[in-house]
Amino acid sequence: MTTEAIPSTQLQTESKRHIARTLVDADVHNSVNDISELLPFLSDRWRTYIQQAGFKSPEFSRYIRLYERAARRDSFPPNGAFPGGDQEFAREQLLDPWGIDAAILCPLYPVSDLHNLDFGSALARAVNEWTATIWLDKDPRWRGSIVVNTGDPLAAAEEIRRAGRDPRFVQVLLIARAPAPYGRRQYRPMLAAASDMGLPLGIHFGGEHGGAITATGCPSYYIEDHTGMPQAFEAQVLSLVAEGVFETFPSLRVALIEGGFAWLPALMWRFDKNFKGLRDEVPWLQKLPSEYIREHFRATTQPMEEPPNPQHLLQILDMIGRDDFLMFATDYPHWDFDAPDRALPSILPADIRAGIMAANAEAFYDFDRT
Amino acid sequence: MTTEAIPSTQLQTESKRHIARTLVDADVHNSVNDISELLPFLSDRWRTYIQQAGFKSPEFSRYIRLYERAARRDSFPPNGAFPGGDQEFAREQLLDPWGIDAAILCPLYPVSDLHNLDFGSALARAVNEWTATIWLDKDPRWRGSIVVNTGDPLAAAEEIRRAGRDPRFVQVLLIARAPAPYGRRQYRPMLAAASDMGLPLGIHFGGEHGGAITATGCPSYYIEDHTGMPQAFEAQVLSLVAEGVFETFPSLRVALIEGGFAWLPALMWRFDKNFKGLRDEVPWLQKLPSEYIREHFRATTQPMEEPPNPQHLLQILDMIGRDDFLMFATDYPHWDFDAPDRALPSILPADIRAGIMAANAEAFYDFDRT
Repeated sequence: MTTEAIPSTQLQTESKRHIARTLVDADVHNSVNDISELLPFLSDRWRTYIQQAGFKSPEFSRYIRLYERAARRDSFPPNGAFPGGDQEFAREQLLDPWGIDAAILCPLYPVSDLHNLDFGSALARAVNEWTATIWLDKDPRWRGSIVVNTGDPLAAAEEIRRAGRDPRFVQVLLIARAPAPYGRRQYRPMLAAASDMGLPLGIHFGGEHGGAITATGCPSYYIEDHTGMPQAFEAQVLSLVAEGVFETFPSLRVALIEGGFAWLPALMWRFDKNFKGLRDEVPWLQKLPSEYIREHFRATTQPMEEPPNPQHLLQILDMIGRDDFLMFATDYPHWDFDAPDRALPSILPADIRAGIMAANAEAFYDFDRT
Repeated sequence: MTTEAIPSTQLQTESKRHIARTLVDADVHNSVNDISELLPFLSDRWRTYIQQAGFKSPEFSRYIRLYERAARRDSFPPNGAFPGGDQEFAREQLLDPWGIDAAILCPLYPVSDLHNLDFGSALARAVNEWTATIWLDKDPRWRGSIVVNTGDPLAAAEEIRRAGRDPRFVQVLLIARAPAPYGRRQYRPMLAAASDMGLPLGIHFGGEHGGAITATGCPSYYIEDHTGMPQAFEAQVLSLVAEGVFETFPSLRVALIEGGFAWLPALMWRFDKNFKGLRDEVPWLQKLPSEYIREHFRATTQPMEEPPNPQHLLQILDMIGRDDFLMFATDYPHWDFDAPDRALPSILPADIRAGIMAANAEAFYDFDRT
């Protein structure tokens, strides 16, 4: 096993990084409690539209999640806000007790599922301004993800260039299940904007846009919805690599958030094998698909894959071929929260563990950009 | 690593098995060259229908496969038939030179994609009679798969009970990508028929029914279509287990054909972990999802996953937890044919190799039922 993780001591010597972080949480969910919270960030046109229609929220699922708002029961703030809906409560329940030095907010407000494209884009911008005002302004440990309306990639590009000027936003948030995979040409302007702004894509668990959520239709249960989510990540990785995105945007990086990672070796092997027989179809690729994957992708840990034999986890990391591939995440406040002190099996060597808990995310995200 | 494979010597002592097979090919494709070949097996009604409409074939793909008919160039018979379209040529090119003792035919005639359900069911039955007459009658080494129209599960059940009376048919052939996963209730009569007849399901690579072929829409290229195929298998495994199919049909077995297998450990770990939090949703499950998978599923080898470090393959088998999980297949006559002498890496111990090449399929399929 190679040791490509950057030791945390080295980080202190890098001039652009000011803080030695030992615990980074790469996936925390802040929630809009009510559409009224977004009204200050919307134009008169959309305020009228919302009020006239009685619009409450784009959130909707045909899968019943067993846990209300997919949340830990103890994460409902006493003031009646949603889990992740009260900045102070989240700070007190997550950041302070666990000693988290930086936490990336991923608001799962599904603006891209709305058919009215301008409304979706207006909501995306409103959510980003809300995140900046209600969360990032309140505690320097929070970092933001830029919500975009992928239904209108040109508008998404514009929002990335606007919101990305605020250095507290560290990635562009995309949802794993979309009507088309993100390597498809229609998304190029959006990817160009992310690349130009030096922002990675964060592809996050989720998406229920109306089409089938698996390669073979819609399953019946949330356990299938949730367990089957890596399928969308597999399709996204395939698409971004096969379409030559990383030849067009050589510095673009992608975080796979809440989709697991143990499925990656199988995908890399099949992809490389097929590439040998089918490379004529994708002549822009200059190297093996697995090389693009190793270079451009990282994954968050939660939900941590937990083989009964923990040795198997080390083997998977060895197959992936990068010790710095994983970035720790809690997924607070969701029901399948991974606690920082228990998420990683004890079999992991100390340097790999330190990398996962902070250094890998520090190397991937620019938490201190100005 | 445990050794659960049945040694081939033991097979000879089992009274119901008459032939000691050392090489079994679990995936060979016989092809209908022209609709005229099926006319003798269709009623007047459908013969008129076909002729009036000028119907040629249900075969269709929006992915251009780079290789004509997805075939090895040397598999086109000199008489102008399709690859896999000439029984004698296939016998001479595949069975004889490689010394294959039994080969399972999987005709990929996509009858389930047709919207006219009665026509699809009539074609399914015709293909099965054609397989019996044109292939199984000609060489005792061939075994058949029952083609069914999954668009009409009641008709599919009827066809399984009809065709299954011919003991040369050893499985029910299902296509991985369907409009709904096969655990869904609508398919129960079809699964009941397979279970009653003692026939395993063989879920095979493929399917283009009109809906998206991944969890996130349609990718652009055949390399993505092909490399992404395990997604459909993942959804099928999830569905069959989550819906309690193996509690309803405890003896039902499933072969995963041409979908790979290295993705299974990741799925089992995520599934088991989610089961701990979500078991209330699927109260009929009596054990861990991974236990159903290990007990009821097997996979064919081709396309063999080829990690650059062959040790990783042994690790994957260890994670799957059954040495008898894999069954050798060539996928003749397709372009990505795996040769019997080169498909398996030399690192595999002799007993495991012998199991993969014949004994595992012998234990899974009943090649000598009467």
